[in-house]
Amino acid sequence: MKDNTDRLEQIVDFCRLTDKEKFIRRRTYLTDGQRLENDAEHAWHLAVMALLLCEYANEEVDLLKVVSMVLIHDLVEIYAGDTFAYDKEGIKTQKAREEAAADRLFPRLPEDLAEKFRGLWEEFEADETPEAHFAHTLDNFQPLMLQAATDGKAWQEGHRKLSEVLHRNRRTSAGSEILWAYAEKHFIEPQLRNGHLEDDTVNG
Amino acid sequence: MKDNTDRLEQIVDFCRLTDKEKFIRRRTYLTDGQRLENDAEHAWHLAVMALLLCEYANEEVDLLKVVSMVLIHDLVEIYAGDTFAYDKEGIKTQKAREEAAADRLFPRLPEDLAEKFRGLWEEFEADETPEAHFAHTLDNFQPLMLQAATDGKAWQEGHRKLSEVLHRNRRTSAGSEILWAYAEKHFIEPQLRNGHLEDDTVNG
Repeated sequence: MKDNTDRLEQIVDFCRLTDKEKFIRRRTYLTDGQRLENDAEHAWHLAVMALLLCEYANEEVDLLKVVSMVLIHDLVEIYAGDTFAYDKEGIKTQKAREEAAADRLFPRLPEDLAEKFRGLWEEFEADETPEAHFAHTLDNFQPLMLQAATDGKAWQEGHRKLSEVLHRNRRTSAGSEILWAYAEKHFIEPQLRNGHLEDDTVNG
Repeated sequence: MKDNTDRLEQIVDFCRLTDKEKFIRRRTYLTDGQRLENDAEHAWHLAVMALLLCEYANEEVDLLKVVSMVLIHDLVEIYAGDTFAYDKEGIKTQKAREEAAADRLFPRLPEDLAEKFRGLWEEFEADETPEAHFAHTLDNFQPLMLQAATDGKAWQEGHRKLSEVLHRNRRTSAGSEILWAYAEKHFIEPQLRNGHLEDDTVNG
């Protein structure tokens, strides 16, 4: 297999294509509050955080699988674009758009690697394994951390309400109760107190 | 350990600090030829490429170790800054500056994680294990790939010479003979033919 130059060329072509993930902009400000994050930066941050925070997963996780999953979880956005977590219309079509993107993207790899990457992505999307739960926790925890670091800048700009943030995070504790409790206390509550996030819940 | 909130706070503070890696600019253009890459994007790209290319390593590698290594190999640049591979003066002081940065950076983590991260970084720097060899191969292969994708743009701007590129890549084959041969043929030779890289070697 190793002297098969077609195979190597196909993989390298895919590696070159993935560069496009650096152009997909998210809606979260970096800690300087000046620039929005892109998908590649986000995936890198999640992977580093997986190495540092895996002890807080609710269940024992296969760390290589978690890291691989977060590294590639947004690759389909190269074709499907980023869907903003609070874009209700976009979310309705997100699944179909991302499935179509996956059908276009992963077959560019040799079959065994296409299966591996598609499998990781589908496992992430299905959110049924300890690794997928924890990957989703990180995927939610990291933007909350950046949001708090910028004093809720994007929440202020979007006139975001607590009910929306809680809905978006309704599964965050499934991967780590501890990280969700931390996020509530350190990332969400201070923004409620300073009014950068509106408390529209019954207790608010 | 898990109810120790000081520990968790210390780790989260470190996670927030690593956001700064997204502001460290490298000297390689992205595939659109318009913008320079940053350290976080670079590290993400290496990690994805490790998942895809590990079968081409000269020796069997522990993939989680390779991925962890490439994810964190540039973290010291948060304090030391990026040293351009062709900056002869900068390279003279690079080791001392990066050691000082490591002394400042890693102790911000709880002791066990500080040891783990510093150990990975030192193993990468020492370049003596199969994982470190392969991580270095990726660290060299990826910018060559981007260079070729932009038709040698940064090489043209820097009036780069083949001898410099070969010197910079003198150890690239140590992690993968196959990837180095591929890079020579597909990334370097076309830029020599079109004159975007000057052949100043005896055979040139």
